Amino acid sequence: MGWTSCVAHIEPISDEWMNVARERLDNLTKPIRSLGVLEDLAARMVAIREEAMPAVSKKAVFVFAGDHGVATDGVSPYPQEVTGLMVKTFLAGRAGINVLARAAGANVNIIDIGMKSDIGDEGALIRRNIGRGTRNLAEGPAMTREETEAALNVGVEMAERAYEEGVTLLATGEMGIGNTTPSTALYCALLPADVKAMTGRGTGLDDRGLRHKMDVIQKGLDRNAALCIDPFSTLSALGGYEIAGICGLCLGGAARRIPVVVDGFISGAGALAAMRMNSLVKDYLIFSHRSAEQGHERFFKTEGIRPLLDLDLRLGEGTGAALAMQLIDDAVRIYREMATFEEAGITPGS
Amino acid sequence: MGWTSCVAHIEPISDEWMNVARERLDNLTKPIRSLGVLEDLAARMVAIREEAMPAVSKKAVFVFAGDHGVATDGVSPYPQEVTGLMVKTFLAGRAGINVLARAAGANVNIIDIGMKSDIGDEGALIRRNIGRGTRNLAEGPAMTREETEAALNVGVEMAERAYEEGVTLLATGEMGIGNTTPSTALYCALLPADVKAMTGRGTGLDDRGLRHKMDVIQKGLDRNAALCIDPFSTLSALGGYEIAGICGLCLGGAARRIPVVVDGFISGAGALAAMRMNSLVKDYLIFSHRSAEQGHERFFKTEGIRPLLDLDLRLGEGTGAALAMQLIDDAVRIYREMATFEEAGITPGS
Repeated sequence: MGWTSCVAHIEPISDEWMNVARERLDNLTKPIRSLGVLEDLAARMVAIREEAMPAVSKKAVFVFAGDHGVATDGVSPYPQEVTGLMVKTFLAGRAGINVLARAAGANVNIIDIGMKSDIGDEGALIRRNIGRGTRNLAEGPAMTREETEAALNVGVEMAERAYEEGVTLLATGEMGIGNTTPSTALYCALLPADVKAMTGRGTGLDDRGLRHKMDVIQKGLDRNAALCIDPFSTLSALGGYEIAGICGLCLGGAARRIPVVVDGFISGAGALAAMRMNSLVKDYLIFSHRSAEQGHERFFKTEGIRPLLDLDLRLGEGTGAALAMQLIDDAVRIYREMATFEEAGITPGS
Repeated sequence: MGWTSCVAHIEPISDEWMNVARERLDNLTKPIRSLGVLEDLAARMVAIREEAMPAVSKKAVFVFAGDHGVATDGVSPYPQEVTGLMVKTFLAGRAGINVLARAAGANVNIIDIGMKSDIGDEGALIRRNIGRGTRNLAEGPAMTREETEAALNVGVEMAERAYEEGVTLLATGEMGIGNTTPSTALYCALLPADVKAMTGRGTGLDDRGLRHKMDVIQKGLDRNAALCIDPFSTLSALGGYEIAGICGLCLGGAARRIPVVVDGFISGAGALAAMRMNSLVKDYLIFSHRSAEQGHERFFKTEGIRPLLDLDLRLGEGTGAALAMQLIDDAVRIYREMATFEEAGITPGS
């Protein structure tokens, strides 16, 4: 399946299955709705999977790594080489995402989708490099249309691969020095919202750095304005390889009825692009957390989304998604394992 | 150790150990402070345990079950018999707390500290019944001073027992039909706050039921006003056996330098009583979630506490605490398992 075929094949999630789930939830030994958001998650899992008793998840996190032309423009305190060094740390199993995915029982897959440095056949790296970093979005489109297609299809390929392996819960992750800049530009164009409301400090800019970052993003939006005629071309002009990969994973997951846990601010930009390509995608996405990056809250408000966690995280990599995977499993366990009132011999009150 | 000796022996947590933890956290392969609340949790675990590399927790939840004279006053839609029936469900391993504690790898201990019905030697029930339900707080003190002492000491005993078994993370839980009423009365007296701001719908009162509940609580506060001269006597007049047990567990945990994860609204009332007996207790408590019960937020604001989760839970039993235990373990794993910048060969940026 290519990404366009995914966009065409996504179906609404079923109200009927939602009602099946609600009925069971209301008969479990607890006051009605007293497990709040966990109940919503369980019902959504039933409706997405179309299974009366969904399995506790076989889980996989896909971490897309890419570099950005705009990163040479002073938008991050870290040099671009850190993308490759961090990917090596992922492959060694020693980064935040490895630790939290292990805790959640999730498999971690690292994809070089557009890193500047070629780190070779190290470890379990999945090599799908489309370009050695994007072009500078402040000066023109970050990617060609062909590159964007290819990156979307890498995301879809990963969802397909997971589907074939029986994965029932996907998560997004990313690594790419400077990638809050293209993400912010995408939010601005797709929500839409203005640069000031959406731009945050990324991994740690000072006030001057923040003003510079806003200027760069505004320049990128102005320079590419004529190109941004639909979600695909906007993603192409302002995004990045890893962001398009995440977008593809969301599309591929939704097409295969596998829920996708969306990590933080950068993953959210990829998810938003997918939602703009087909609004039905949203029902398959579970937003893991509200990031400390300021524009994230604006995104949630505009789209009417309540993320699961709010822990001031701003690391990315998929770390917030890995934490949320535990809660999703917990919700499914509640649904599967709790006694009903009848089994417990209790008559609910008035 | 009795409860008074716990109150006397609680020490402040160490700034020195907090700094040891912060230094390691700042050298892990992530932007400074980018794991937000997880970093705070890890630092607190180091400082409470006074260990440079704290262990991932051996965890135990203590669920105290008790009944309430005031429950016959129409403050809950459920009959008092449900306390016993739910405790049987706990003992059968089929309730919400069993499911979530299993997921968190925590041991569940169920204590009859004051249930109305004697359910016998069923399963692993810990039998410490102090009275077959409290007296009606709307008509006078709910417990005698001797009963309150005994209930506090049961909580301390459980903390001691856990300490001896090498438990490094405790959690509170409860079951008791009608127990949002004594809890609300306690918050009103100890915060202090007024009845209207603090009273919620519990397991599902309608508007009329809610007004009646407020009247009952106000009556209890008025009738017992002269008795409420210190935290102990307030707990005695307005609380309940399971609430005093939770208070004792908090005191006992803090005295033994074991962090205590506090469940929801009712557990919070027990924790508040402990904090009023010795304000140092607060540093040993981790508040798991913001309950859907409306007064809970007022408590957090007044005390300057940020709970970990906000998932509209209102089940109690220890369910929110069990969810939070996973996050606390995750925080400790991050601290223990992530590579430092030096190990990864990365020089942090400007």
